[in-house]
Amino acid sequence: MDLQSYLKERAQWVEAALCRSTDDESIPETLRKSMRYSLEAGGKRLRPILCFAGAEGVGGSADRVMPAAVALEMIHTFSLIHDDLPAMDDDSLRRGKPTNHKVFGEAVAILAGDGLLAEAFYVLAEARGIDARLQVQVIADIAAATGGRGMTGGQVLDMEATGKKQGEAALTRMHLYKTGALIRASVTAGARLCGATQHQLSLLSRYGEAIGLAFQIADDILDVTGDQEELGKDIGSDEGKGKSTYPAIIGIDASRRQAAALVDQAIAAVVSFGAAGEPLRAIARYVVERKK
Amino acid sequence: MDLQSYLKERAQWVEAALCRSTDDESIPETLRKSMRYSLEAGGKRLRPILCFAGAEGVGGSADRVMPAAVALEMIHTFSLIHDDLPAMDDDSLRRGKPTNHKVFGEAVAILAGDGLLAEAFYVLAEARGIDARLQVQVIADIAAATGGRGMTGGQVLDMEATGKKQGEAALTRMHLYKTGALIRASVTAGARLCGATQHQLSLLSRYGEAIGLAFQIADDILDVTGDQEELGKDIGSDEGKGKSTYPAIIGIDASRRQAAALVDQAIAAVVSFGAAGEPLRAIARYVVERKK
Repeated sequence: MDLQSYLKERAQWVEAALCRSTDDESIPETLRKSMRYSLEAGGKRLRPILCFAGAEGVGGSADRVMPAAVALEMIHTFSLIHDDLPAMDDDSLRRGKPTNHKVFGEAVAILAGDGLLAEAFYVLAEARGIDARLQVQVIADIAAATGGRGMTGGQVLDMEATGKKQGEAALTRMHLYKTGALIRASVTAGARLCGATQHQLSLLSRYGEAIGLAFQIADDILDVTGDQEELGKDIGSDEGKGKSTYPAIIGIDASRRQAAALVDQAIAAVVSFGAAGEPLRAIARYVVERKK
Repeated sequence: MDLQSYLKERAQWVEAALCRSTDDESIPETLRKSMRYSLEAGGKRLRPILCFAGAEGVGGSADRVMPAAVALEMIHTFSLIHDDLPAMDDDSLRRGKPTNHKVFGEAVAILAGDGLLAEAFYVLAEARGIDARLQVQVIADIAAATGGRGMTGGQVLDMEATGKKQGEAALTRMHLYKTGALIRASVTAGARLCGATQHQLSLLSRYGEAIGLAFQIADDILDVTGDQEELGKDIGSDEGKGKSTYPAIIGIDASRRQAAALVDQAIAAVVSFGAAGEPLRAIARYVVERKK
């Protein structure tokens, strides 16, 4: 399969839907502009794509899960806006563009994040033509992956670990919260909405957890070895911020081996999906082979 | 009916449920403490009580809507934590206690708000034994009332109006977004989950909108005439912050008349509910007669 076209096409689908979802004049203009600024700032759209691939893996279609794909990208974008705030990572650039608070000020940036988080649940709940029982399960999964039991909890663990030496187990726990939970929920949301069985969901859960961690290890490696221009951010920025990374704890070679092993695990988890699982397997390989 | 016992009893119900909902060790400790600190800081618990009263108004029970009541108070608490932040209203006291960021720092306070918002949707979606179709409608209503089309949008309108002279229409619009939307959603959520008809929902919507605005006008009046000690905050703080208020725009007497007229409208809207609507009517009177 041609993964690049697959990724590009789906990124375009979700970008068009994101644009439609936030084009509502009942949202006050400043807030709407600020929300859209960050939604339109680009990115790989990995979570929506995983949601589509999860749906396709169990014989469903991307169409059916578009609201979930939109919601997942809104939640990811909310987290980036809040992570970049002066009180958090204090970043002034994201993907080569000024961060939200640099453009709209801190107060509006906080509210744009809040607005995107609430909007995500609006989009999820407002979708029609889906079995409502599946819908509430997906909302519960995504909410758990977003809040204190997931991403938001992981951000607190990350902050508390910054500047301290932490072991591999603590680093892995932090990443499972901070990025793993939402990545796993992305894959399973798509599949669940398309009627996946419990067995399929448990395989996809294993897949999602493995690629979530592999993604993070690859990120850490790129932060040391990547091309600054291609990456769109400074090399070595993790170390500069006092953040623990896999290469710093176990070395570059062991990090590479571990990422590769996780990709193998992810691929093995979805081998029974046959041809329908090919996008999931190609994405797993892409997660560690990407240059940015 | 004895309104004071009614309010006190229901506040205790929701406080016990809030405590249970956040007592989960999978939420990292610092975050959990910070979320619970603000949830336990007291308050009237008006939104959960309205949710119960809405349920009872259509012959339902408080038990059935407890998850919605909990979620509404979590969302209200999230908004208070973020409103108090240095980048927003920069308040150091709330109900006589240090604000969340004064105790836990700005970063954790932002994340505690985020965590409570996500947790609210988790609690709403995770509830079982409810018709899932009603559940997704309630989630959509509450999410719309929370995000850019509601409370979060209202906070942006409030900030943009601060320090500027605004007319009564603009002030009313701001309050309908900032507090009215969630108060209305609180009343209708309870009723909807207990099988309210469309006609009942539209009456309760009218009730909620009227008391939401009456509540805000009463707040503005208390800010000028209230007892500092009873209120737990400085008198005249709105004016000091450059905020428009009803008394400043239309005068104290006209503000009192308008609040009373809104209460009459609210009571009239639910007159057909008979005895089951008595708590709703008593709450409408209380909203403008309260001293804090």
